[in-house]
Amino acid sequence: MLKNRSVVTIEDVSDEDLKEIFSIADDMEKLLKENRKADIMQSKIMCTLFYEPSTRTRLSFESAMHRLGGSVISMADVKTSSVSKGETLADTIRMADSYSDIIVIRHPLEGAARLASRFTNKPVINAGDGSGQHPTQTIMDLYTIRKELGHIDGINVLMLGDLKYGRTVHSLIIALSRFNVKITLVSPESLKIPDYILKRVHDEDKIKLSTDLESSLPEADVVYVTRIQRERFTDPNEYQALIGSYSIDSNSLEMMKKDSIIMHPLPRVDEISTEVDRDPRAAYFRQASNGVPVRMALISKIMGVM
Amino acid sequence: MLKNRSVVTIEDVSDEDLKEIFSIADDMEKLLKENRKADIMQSKIMCTLFYEPSTRTRLSFESAMHRLGGSVISMADVKTSSVSKGETLADTIRMADSYSDIIVIRHPLEGAARLASRFTNKPVINAGDGSGQHPTQTIMDLYTIRKELGHIDGINVLMLGDLKYGRTVHSLIIALSRFNVKITLVSPESLKIPDYILKRVHDEDKIKLSTDLESSLPEADVVYVTRIQRERFTDPNEYQALIGSYSIDSNSLEMMKKDSIIMHPLPRVDEISTEVDRDPRAAYFRQASNGVPVRMALISKIMGVM
Amino acid sequence: MLKNRSVVTIEDVSDEDLKEIFSIADDMEKLLKENRKADIMQSKIMCTLFYEPSTRTRLSFESAMHRLGGSVISMADVKTSSVSKGETLADTIRMADSYSDIIVIRHPLEGAARLASRFTNKPVINAGDGSGQHPTQTIMDLYTIRKELGHIDGINVLMLGDLKYGRTVHSLIIALSRFNVKITLVSPESLKIPDYILKRVHDEDKIKLSTDLESSLPEADVVYVTRIQRERFTDPNEYQALIGSYSIDSNSLEMMKKDSIIMHPLPRVDEISTEVDRDPRAAYFRQASNGVPVRMALISKIMGVM
Repeated sequence: MLKNRSVVTIEDVSDEDLKEIFSIADDMEKLLKENRKADIMQSKIMCTLFYEPSTRTRLSFESAMHRLGGSVISMADVKTSSVSKGETLADTIRMADSYSDIIVIRHPLEGAARLASRFTNKPVINAGDGSGQHPTQTIMDLYTIRKELGHIDGINVLMLGDLKYGRTVHSLIIALSRFNVKITLVSPESLKIPDYILKRVHDEDKIKLSTDLESSLPEADVVYVTRIQRERFTDPNEYQALIGSYSIDSNSLEMMKKDSIIMHPLPRVDEISTEVDRDPRAAYFRQASNGVPVRMALISKIMGVM
Repeated sequence: MLKNRSVVTIEDVSDEDLKEIFSIADDMEKLLKENRKADIMQSKIMCTLFYEPSTRTRLSFESAMHRLGGSVISMADVKTSSVSKGETLADTIRMADSYSDIIVIRHPLEGAARLASRFTNKPVINAGDGSGQHPTQTIMDLYTIRKELGHIDGINVLMLGDLKYGRTVHSLIIALSRFNVKITLVSPESLKIPDYILKRVHDEDKIKLSTDLESSLPEADVVYVTRIQRERFTDPNEYQALIGSYSIDSNSLEMMKKDSIIMHPLPRVDEISTEVDRDPRAAYFRQASNGVPVRMALISKIMGVM
Repeated sequence: MLKNRSVVTIEDVSDEDLKEIFSIADDMEKLLKENRKADIMQSKIMCTLFYEPSTRTRLSFESAMHRLGGSVISMADVKTSSVSKGETLADTIRMADSYSDIIVIRHPLEGAARLASRFTNKPVINAGDGSGQHPTQTIMDLYTIRKELGHIDGINVLMLGDLKYGRTVHSLIIALSRFNVKITLVSPESLKIPDYILKRVHDEDKIKLSTDLESSLPEADVVYVTRIQRERFTDPNEYQALIGSYSIDSNSLEMMKKDSIIMHPLPRVDEISTEVDRDPRAAYFRQASNGVPVRMALISKIMGVM
């Protein structure tokens, strides 16, 4: 039961909740395609508090709220806010509480969203807190797998790229381990998955670590690629040397299964060659589109109208 | 009669207007609590022109407009605007006039809101002009006192902190002096109330100046605290020395009346200790919440639908 | 037929389309004046992607969308966006495609809007691309002439100021040359119209070049003034010397026809003296107001509801 509840980590969403969100998201998607209205949030206000910029995530939430007939007020840029006058997170959240019905927060510090949820009775959705979690991204990733492949149980997932800092993969690994899946983690040694994430995994036997992409590609049903940030490397040549071995191009496509899919949380830079875009297995843009119906479903559940 | 009129200073709002705004705000608050819709502003547009950032004030106006079913267009940041190309205030206001039905303006220069109102037939609401006025803050302060204490006449108000630069207290002192009240102004010598404000007060006998907080606390029905800005002091030690004597903590609570209230325009920094927040006399978050129904009432009056 | 089509240049809009847009804009203006609602865009979302700031253009589009009952999501400032993480225009457009029904783009590079339209099936409106085009400005300029003078055919148009860099005049010259008009282009030698624009004109005989304002003023039915940007000149004295000879003041009014009009895309700085504002021939603020009904008409046509 998500009604009036905050969603800070993917653990706040039970298996039962997930199933319901998926089913409502299916309905929402149908509704969007048929150009029908969903005015269930009319006269409701979402407040988006973004302590670090993320246009993609913010616009996805705002689009979902508007599609439901609701309104949005937005603090998209912390520099133009009371925060610059020294206000605490607690007091800013109390402000959002006064002005809105549901709060979406993005913050550079892990734990900020949980802290925020303690200072308001309104539901808080974590839209990413530092190296912490980003649960709505995870829900939409799971939804995409289920929609593209028909099921999550029984699949082989290859996760590729920056597994050390990538918040998205951390959440997804933990969530996927609740299902009957095999996960292969492929990254350069310097960007491998941290131990504290592996410890939160439900069953460590489901996980295999590797530094070699080619040998792992042929078995994967899902290839989940993440951005390797140039800024992580002090030596730019090191980035250039690595990116070739940990990216997807038309050669990778040849090694992959016919009915597999490629996912990416976006924005992508060099990790997936644009020549891949036209292949039907390139699911990342469809994945991004799923963000709106999934968030519509989550908001509806939390606000108690579905 | 506020219909189609601009509200630039609290003097633009008569005693009769105030009474009506309070009564409509009561209705609006009830409506918000009962989750009922107020679609009286549907297809109407508010334009918020903020020449200096104030997320709190802007979001409060935007929330009020959305609660009434209206839409908002926003120039939240002067740096991304035509103003940076050398456009005059008059021409920018004429733009807002073309695009909206009601204009909310915040400007660093005193008199800017009055000037703005001369270049449009649409109503203009002053959301703070330099060291000038901020009338909607004042209306919501008066509304809060009336709601918390049941009446404004007959009370003892203690105002604390930066009384020299604090626009909020200037407006409030002038407005309170229209009622039968006693006002004690407590501030460090360097931040005391300017003479030109005292001269605008209706009856100077209602005002008492002091530099000592403790002796004044026991008599106060309302303790109105304002932020002492660190930036006012060239010597940071001077700020540290002062802030202790002009702030509210649990010791202050012991000296205060049982049925008194503490107010603050927010954001607060060090002037009210967070240990005070749990005391029922801490009215500042309730005060902030009142901003939405009060602004809903004012907008409705000005737009002629209430 | 504009239904589901992108509008990147004024050439995308046929003479027949123009006629229909003008007629719908007349209806929209009437509707606005009578305070009636137009909820034909309800549950539809416009995404405004502004890669360079233009508050005037952005708010005009947003106002039009709200007046039609629709919603807006906005990337008003590229610095707070995925673009700063290295995302390509194509991927950003695909994001906007997922989140909205119609995309409005402003970009510093010529051709960006056309490129954008290739990566989405949703209609794209060019809100200005570098020294390229700004078709909605041109449509509203034509609409203003027709509304103010009753017709476009047969008139004498004087265009004044920066004709070299001024995107607005480039589009307007090309569009006007589709009508039976005479165009006199008055500019300092250093800011005269580029040859590549003259070559796109339908009939070069309609165009006359001049550096002398006074001799051209008495014949003009429309005096279209553009901003001469101080930044174009390395020597500030050169700007000061020029601006006097290429601007409109009360002396110019005396030389002009009684029933002529003065237009300007705004913001204006020194090119039109404020003493001109009160003259009934000063049409530039009325021109700006026309932006909303014209954009309402264009959006309605594109979205297939009119």
